[in-house]
Amino acid sequence: MAVGNSPFPTMPPLAGVRLGSAMAGIKKPGRRDMVVIELPASATVSGVFTLNAFCAAPVSVAKAHIERCRAERKAPCYWLINTGNANAGTGERGLADAYASCRALAEQAGVAEHQVLPFSTGVIGEPLPMERLLAGLAPALDSKGEQSEAWQHAGEGILTTDTRAKGATVTVQLSGGSVTINGITKGSGMIKPNMATMLGFVVTDATIEQSLLDQLLRETVNGSFNCITVDSDTSTNDACMLAATGSGAAVESKADIAAFREALQQVMTTLAQAIIRDGEGATKFVTLQVEAAQTRQEALDVAFTVAHSPLVKTALYASDANWGRILAAVGRAPVDDFDVSRVVIDLGDVRLVEDGGRASSYTEALGSAVMAQEEITIRIGLGRGQESATVWTSDLSHDYVSINADYRS
Amino acid sequence: MAVGNSPFPTMPPLAGVRLGSAMAGIKKPGRRDMVVIELPASATVSGVFTLNAFCAAPVSVAKAHIERCRAERKAPCYWLINTGNANAGTGERGLADAYASCRALAEQAGVAEHQVLPFSTGVIGEPLPMERLLAGLAPALDSKGEQSEAWQHAGEGILTTDTRAKGATVTVQLSGGSVTINGITKGSGMIKPNMATMLGFVVTDATIEQSLLDQLLRETVNGSFNCITVDSDTSTNDACMLAATGSGAAVESKADIAAFREALQQVMTTLAQAIIRDGEGATKFVTLQVEAAQTRQEALDVAFTVAHSPLVKTALYASDANWGRILAAVGRAPVDDFDVSRVVIDLGDVRLVEDGGRASSYTEALGSAVMAQEEITIRIGLGRGQESATVWTSDLSHDYVSINADYRS
Repeated sequence: MAVGNSPFPTMPPLAGVRLGSAMAGIKKPGRRDMVVIELPASATVSGVFTLNAFCAAPVSVAKAHIERCRAERKAPCYWLINTGNANAGTGERGLADAYASCRALAEQAGVAEHQVLPFSTGVIGEPLPMERLLAGLAPALDSKGEQSEAWQHAGEGILTTDTRAKGATVTVQLSGGSVTINGITKGSGMIKPNMATMLGFVVTDATIEQSLLDQLLRETVNGSFNCITVDSDTSTNDACMLAATGSGAAVESKADIAAFREALQQVMTTLAQAIIRDGEGATKFVTLQVEAAQTRQEALDVAFTVAHSPLVKTALYASDANWGRILAAVGRAPVDDFDVSRVVIDLGDVRLVEDGGRASSYTEALGSAVMAQEEITIRIGLGRGQESATVWTSDLSHDYVSINADYRS
Repeated sequence: MAVGNSPFPTMPPLAGVRLGSAMAGIKKPGRRDMVVIELPASATVSGVFTLNAFCAAPVSVAKAHIERCRAERKAPCYWLINTGNANAGTGERGLADAYASCRALAEQAGVAEHQVLPFSTGVIGEPLPMERLLAGLAPALDSKGEQSEAWQHAGEGILTTDTRAKGATVTVQLSGGSVTINGITKGSGMIKPNMATMLGFVVTDATIEQSLLDQLLRETVNGSFNCITVDSDTSTNDACMLAATGSGAAVESKADIAAFREALQQVMTTLAQAIIRDGEGATKFVTLQVEAAQTRQEALDVAFTVAHSPLVKTALYASDANWGRILAAVGRAPVDDFDVSRVVIDLGDVRLVEDGGRASSYTEALGSAVMAQEEITIRIGLGRGQESATVWTSDLSHDYVSINADYRS
């Protein structure tokens, strides 16, 4: 199931960026489950990673390799991704496996071991099937290509319970010429903010210096991947990578930075929303807008409290305008000195709540008409200040339970 | 569905405590949905209430009536409970309805309006059907009785999606003679700590002064109702009441207080666990013990993070030893400077996790054998300190989704 039609876009090629994939039998036979992304040696690379204390071995190794590349001014120019196995909760052996994977790819590609960054997603706690993974390296490297099809195959090769490959591309005109941003992502379950939640690989041909690239990644992730939730579970593995190959126009002037940030935000938001649209068992795409909060954090707290409520999520699944559950979730959000008489809640363009209770203009027919839609916006005004936040989530369906009760089988 | 057999116990009568119920057609025809509990004028009464900012009208009124009774040294000696309608999110009209309900009962019973405490549970946001409620008062009062059957009928008359009445009784020997504690409760959905989560009515014939009664209620609720969660949703309505009628032995000496507290804790814990056993769609009863934490709050935070994880809950439902999900939930708990290499996790008596990964002694067969059980204990040692906490929860099943997707129909 997925909400909204989003065919994989046609990705323009980026000079020096080549993607390969293989069916290594790690996830299941006959399915792409290994991806290699190759970047030119001129690339600048940033990454943000899960905050889960039990972070997976590949996360530790990727971070260490990025640090060493920065110290040596080398590009971390091979990204090696597998699905089907998270290499998390695997202790010392997991770390050794992650390092060995990088070493094997580095030897075949002729780069240093720390120029390879590993990423894994899938079941936690099983040892990585190294034989199959190592055997998959050569076919993955052999299949590398720059064309859109290679991006799409890479998008397919990183999926877990996702039902479809997710990509986004934007081309933006800068003062020095046009640059393109291509990205792929996977999500589906264990999706919750704090950069923790998915794999995202975004590459641009723009030229951007390291600290600006780091900042742009943080900012745009905060407004996209950190604002989505399927089930509040922060994964052990996930990461969002951003590379600038340096073959295209420079992002330096204030105007160019603003234009590029906007384009990058668009790519990130499209990818993040694609994860929600394809969330496990999703039948609804829900936008939660919290306004008039004292701080952005307060707005996020209220939005996530509603987004995580199983009762709100099951009512959304049932297309049941049981708005009392939204009110109850707002009421239990961690907000100090909360005056609920100032709260207004709208479902689409229908006012649900004002003056501490049901809006006088509300009728069940009006509410039900909005709830029947596939894409629903819930707007919550707190009447306390000027800050706001937007969070995207899905509903809680029978399929969510089925998918997660059967995931390993 | 419910986990574990717990027939309604035989409740000894408590002098001057009479319970009546009626089928008022508030929830559905032919179902007990109104309860009146009458206490003697000598009773001392304590209550704890939801922390939801959108607290329901009856919660506001009950609190105000208790305050006024304390000021006037009168007993709040009639508790009026309805199911089928929460009278929450109903604004000014809801408050007026709650007051009018108390006034009508007070007139028929010959007490002051503020000696009546109202409690409601059910759908949020619909006006209380006052005509039916007022018509139910006389039959409810007429049916009052002291016997166990009256307690059981009262237990039935407060249920929402619960599948059975829940009661507990303990008799304890004090220096001045034996005293009895009887309690009934309802829960099922929207069950999460912060006294927020259920209705509980507990009455003892002991003689206990007000401040000690308040303290005993707070302490025993913290170790019971505040340690359960079905779905993390804190309700707008719920309350736990404790009355001491003063007809029996006094609870004054240190030894008597300790003995009474232990008995009361037993009643509270039995009732709280009964809510989890009968949680919406529950097929498992899960005990989460977090040990070696720096503070009790830290232990509770870890326990609730695991207890609320939809992925852990669906794995429990599937009897799938997908312990990586437990590890991932522990890893994202809000714990500062978390050294996961010191964490140990046991599933029943099977060690799952040590040294940052899967325990070397673990096998899938061992884990699966524990997961197949109906009652499961997950023990998590943090290796950080001396504090601990225990939390009880249920799994996330297809029935949970069905019940909550269909609740209003």
